[in-house]
Amino acid sequence: MNTYLPIICGILALLFAFVFSNEITKESSGNDRMKEIAGYIHEGAMAFLITEYKYLAIFIIVVAIVIVLAISFQTAVCFVFGAIFSIFAGYFGMRVATKANVRTAEAARHGQSKALKIAFSGGAVMGLSVVGLGILGLTVFYLAFGNDVNFITGFGLGASSIALFARVGGGIYTKAADVGADLVGKVEAGIPEDDPRNPAVIADNVGDNVGDVAGMGADLFESYVGSIISALTLGYFLFTNDQTKIMFPLTLASIGIIASIIGILFARKSKGENPQKALNTGTYIGGILVIIGAFILSNKVFGDYKAFGAILAGLVVGTLIGKVTEIYTADEYKYVKKIAKQSETGPATTIISGLAVGMYSTMMPIIFIAVGVLFSFYIMGGASDISMGLYGISLAAVGMLSTTGLTVAVDAYGPIADNAGGIAEMSELPSSVRDITDKLDSVGNTTAAIGKGFAIGSAALTALALFASYAQKTELSAINLLTPVTLVGLLLGAMLPFLFGSLTMESVGKAANEMIEEVRRQFKNIPGIMEGKAKPDYKKCVDISTAAALKEMVLPGILAIVVPLAIGMLLGTEALGGLIAGAVSSGVLMAILMANAGGAWDNAKKYIEGGVHGGKGSDAHKAAVVGDTVGDPFKDTSGPAMNILIKLMTIVSLVFAGVIASHGGILLNLFK
Amino acid sequence: MNTYLPIICGILALLFAFVFSNEITKESSGNDRMKEIAGYIHEGAMAFLITEYKYLAIFIIVVAIVIVLAISFQTAVCFVFGAIFSIFAGYFGMRVATKANVRTAEAARHGQSKALKIAFSGGAVMGLSVVGLGILGLTVFYLAFGNDVNFITGFGLGASSIALFARVGGGIYTKAADVGADLVGKVEAGIPEDDPRNPAVIADNVGDNVGDVAGMGADLFESYVGSIISALTLGYFLFTNDQTKIMFPLTLASIGIIASIIGILFARKSKGENPQKALNTGTYIGGILVIIGAFILSNKVFGDYKAFGAILAGLVVGTLIGKVTEIYTADEYKYVKKIAKQSETGPATTIISGLAVGMYSTMMPIIFIAVGVLFSFYIMGGASDISMGLYGISLAAVGMLSTTGLTVAVDAYGPIADNAGGIAEMSELPSSVRDITDKLDSVGNTTAAIGKGFAIGSAALTALALFASYAQKTELSAINLLTPVTLVGLLLGAMLPFLFGSLTMESVGKAANEMIEEVRRQFKNIPGIMEGKAKPDYKKCVDISTAAALKEMVLPGILAIVVPLAIGMLLGTEALGGLIAGAVSSGVLMAILMANAGGAWDNAKKYIEGGVHGGKGSDAHKAAVVGDTVGDPFKDTSGPAMNILIKLMTIVSLVFAGVIASHGGILLNLFK
Repeated sequence: MNTYLPIICGILALLFAFVFSNEITKESSGNDRMKEIAGYIHEGAMAFLITEYKYLAIFIIVVAIVIVLAISFQTAVCFVFGAIFSIFAGYFGMRVATKANVRTAEAARHGQSKALKIAFSGGAVMGLSVVGLGILGLTVFYLAFGNDVNFITGFGLGASSIALFARVGGGIYTKAADVGADLVGKVEAGIPEDDPRNPAVIADNVGDNVGDVAGMGADLFESYVGSIISALTLGYFLFTNDQTKIMFPLTLASIGIIASIIGILFARKSKGENPQKALNTGTYIGGILVIIGAFILSNKVFGDYKAFGAILAGLVVGTLIGKVTEIYTADEYKYVKKIAKQSETGPATTIISGLAVGMYSTMMPIIFIAVGVLFSFYIMGGASDISMGLYGISLAAVGMLSTTGLTVAVDAYGPIADNAGGIAEMSELPSSVRDITDKLDSVGNTTAAIGKGFAIGSAALTALALFASYAQKTELSAINLLTPVTLVGLLLGAMLPFLFGSLTMESVGKAANEMIEEVRRQFKNIPGIMEGKAKPDYKKCVDISTAAALKEMVLPGILAIVVPLAIGMLLGTEALGGLIAGAVSSGVLMAILMANAGGAWDNAKKYIEGGVHGGKGSDAHKAAVVGDTVGDPFKDTSGPAMNILIKLMTIVSLVFAGVIASHGGILLNLFK
Repeated sequence: MNTYLPIICGILALLFAFVFSNEITKESSGNDRMKEIAGYIHEGAMAFLITEYKYLAIFIIVVAIVIVLAISFQTAVCFVFGAIFSIFAGYFGMRVATKANVRTAEAARHGQSKALKIAFSGGAVMGLSVVGLGILGLTVFYLAFGNDVNFITGFGLGASSIALFARVGGGIYTKAADVGADLVGKVEAGIPEDDPRNPAVIADNVGDNVGDVAGMGADLFESYVGSIISALTLGYFLFTNDQTKIMFPLTLASIGIIASIIGILFARKSKGENPQKALNTGTYIGGILVIIGAFILSNKVFGDYKAFGAILAGLVVGTLIGKVTEIYTADEYKYVKKIAKQSETGPATTIISGLAVGMYSTMMPIIFIAVGVLFSFYIMGGASDISMGLYGISLAAVGMLSTTGLTVAVDAYGPIADNAGGIAEMSELPSSVRDITDKLDSVGNTTAAIGKGFAIGSAALTALALFASYAQKTELSAINLLTPVTLVGLLLGAMLPFLFGSLTMESVGKAANEMIEEVRRQFKNIPGIMEGKAKPDYKKCVDISTAAALKEMVLPGILAIVVPLAIGMLLGTEALGGLIAGAVSSGVLMAILMANAGGAWDNAKKYIEGGVHGGKGSDAHKAAVVGDTVGDPFKDTSGPAMNILIKLMTIVSLVFAGVIASHGGILLNLFK
């Protein structure tokens, strides 16, 4: 197998991203009004990213210095590039997304087919940037530093750190703006959604980009990179110097990139009669190509189909989690209907039944993950060779994420279509335009459910695989649950996602309150604003969201990095192992609970708006709005951040494993 | 040390319970109206218990047969007696509580002092029954079966099973009645709380007894018994044939009983100027006596003060958890004030801030437990002798629970005073009577917070100690988190409290809906009911709560027993170890989250009712009521059941450890 295949495929992905991006830029961006509004959104989004990156620059420099001093120069270099590549992917993807939105709106004036193509191409730029930069970075640094996997964990740490800040910051930004715009604009002033008279409307649309495009992209960049690192690390110790075998995960990822590009081209080619069919076709073609590729590759590299089995298990588990996610959160199924029905007796019963659905919805995904873990472990021969079994688990994660390019494309397509709708509304385009963008948007929502399944499933598998790499590196043959420090670590670790959830939810509340006051102030103090004669001060609202998001992302971000180090230094490697295991188990559960409860409340509200239980404006609808408002920080801020929290903590432990193994456990030594 | 000391102390406790009970019965139970109403409550409560016990009889017989076949006849005997003793304690305690309530109301007509004495004596009967029966059962069966600890785990299993059913059943009963009475009576019909025209009012008062008296008593009976069993089991293997050392936990518990009795007598003697002071005095005296006793006993039995250190650690951790519980749930502190403030912007922000407070409130208790575990492990020399260290953890749990007699007395006193208030209201006694019972009730609420801290802390420590016993019995030297089956067990275990919470919350919803419909029906169909001319059909409502509670307790109860067995049989002892560790860690967190969020919402509502943020009837108040309604099943049904769930699962594993070790892991064997 050619060592340079991953590099070639990475460049190919970036080339396609570049071509799509150019195609989009060439399209018309509509009339002056549209250009003006799109300009506000684009500027707001870019302003946020650039301010965020200034903060992150300080963080990157500080951590890089720590790494140079504590570990090695090479790891620090990898760390810096992991962070920078993640930033590049987010920046590039969002730049294009904020150009594609207005062009999608303009295209929708002439029909659905072209609008679909532009929106999806915009998403594809993000998707291909993620996988292209991910595979390039990993391969280049692996080869450059003498085929040594020890350094590239730094690349993962860089990617994870940026992902956490981007997710938390983006999540707070988008929800503060959303709640502020809705509560004062829709509820108090009684003006429709995306009304240009609402001062928070631009911030709201910017939020969709920084949260759902840049935040999500950084999240999946991290998963993608993390899963490959875990497989590379485990393989490195298993297949000493057999580069073909060691590089198997990179080769598999290369096949995934080719499959994703082909899938994307098919989805783009679709004549757009039925956008759902277009996205499905692309996704299925990509998936099937990866399966075929893995089948051939497994036999060629290992001489059997065991690796293929593990990869297939990952893909199947991801798809199944996505499917059950749909069952708990889509209004065709009984759960959302039940929440809607319970809304008739008021908001309390809406909340209780939503929480109950969310908690219940953890069962099946956990069982799927459990089966996937055991299957990929035992099919690789884990019963007699534990290391091979653990390698199998990491391959399942890589398999699940091999089509990340496609998954991100579909995920990022949604907010672009959503933004296009907002621009159409604010520019007062005919309602037929909005109908098309709404249709495109709703398709994205359904397909995105499967994407969420992949995100949660892969986070769990990646964390478990990284956990195995951590044990390998600290030379722990066992992390014994019967040792009290392990149990104490487990309890503390399980507590962290709760603490993290609390902090992020509080942050959204605080930021939203500031936004609410500002919008109220503008409605009161700017004469003529309600008649549309005076222009609201959009920038002030954008600034509030930006400042709040940046301020509030600091504490949770630092927590995720400092706590594992502190526990490792004080209580040693076993306690840290327990901490990670605890954080992974309760973090995955909280992630599922929050994502699904939030999704179910959202759709219960929409279901009632569709006319049941009294429809819009009824008491049941008011109760459902309460559910939706509670669900917003659940599904868009705290929930998605859990995935990153557990991976970041694991990779911090992995990077600093050596230091902790030799210097950690200070407190325990006192007792000896 | 005399082997029969525990038996003597057990009998002493029961004697005092008997004396107090007789004293209460001799008091006047007021006028005919009061007798009638108290009669309804008494009958309703007894009817529920007797029907519940019929169900449980079937369960006990079936499980006993399984135990005879799978383990041993002696274990089955212990199991049956563990269940029966728990039932006795609940039955006896509630019988007296439903007599004390009306007598407290009658006494309150003549002043506070006597009312306090009767209510507290009623609670003391429950408390002393719990510890008396607990220590008697354990000691008798330990000695009767040839000083063998293996059989008495069955006693713990019996106690735990009954506790789960009593807690879940009682919790569903009380909340269904509460929500039904409040929503239709208070909100829809606009009649006050405890109004005799409300058909659900009797069921509501019965619910306080079956939930807060019988359910809570069974819960602490189980903790008490479980902690002693874990210490006995570990000590049995450590101190071969040295009966003085082996029986140390029973001797310590004996001292705790004497201390509790003295504390209770002091509290009863107080002239009742300040009921809070009376309860505090009793609690402190009991606590100090136990500390002194443990100090002397530790030196006498072990020749040093290490055991004393572990015991003290348990008491300190329990008290600290109680104290921080108060900080998160009492309206003098910022958290409740914040929730109240957030209620101004509607129910959604009330819910978000309550959940955030609940999640945040997990941090300190977990840190306290972690420090307590490490301290009691290392002070016993765990660094060089792991078994001794684990024994230290179990002693911390026994220490924390040594004053259970007193804790339960204070806990059960609250609902008696609450019931007395209800009876006063329904019998139209002068408002001065209600003022006194309200004062007594509010004192109970504050002191009960510390009791909750002990319940959660002891559940965690007991489960960890039982977990160590499990490992001993299955001869596992390690439960390795790096083995995938352990990790899979951990994930599945962590998921169970979520599933369990979902099921119990759904059950409350279903039962409450039935109750709501019945109350509405009676208001509509019984002419003259609102004018107080016709009597509502109280019994119908009592029957609905009874039937619903019994039906809904079956699935969660069976789940808690079957899942550990199934995992052990399919995936083996290590997976089962992981399952328990996962369930304990996420269960403790969910228990704290639910208890504190529920308590904080409750008090935020009361705080607003005190006149802030617009007071009663304002929009903020309405939002706070939504929070309180969501919090009800949190704090009174799902939350408390978590404590039992984790202990029950642990003890099921311990009892069946031998069978699982020799026959388990069927699925894994397929891969070998």
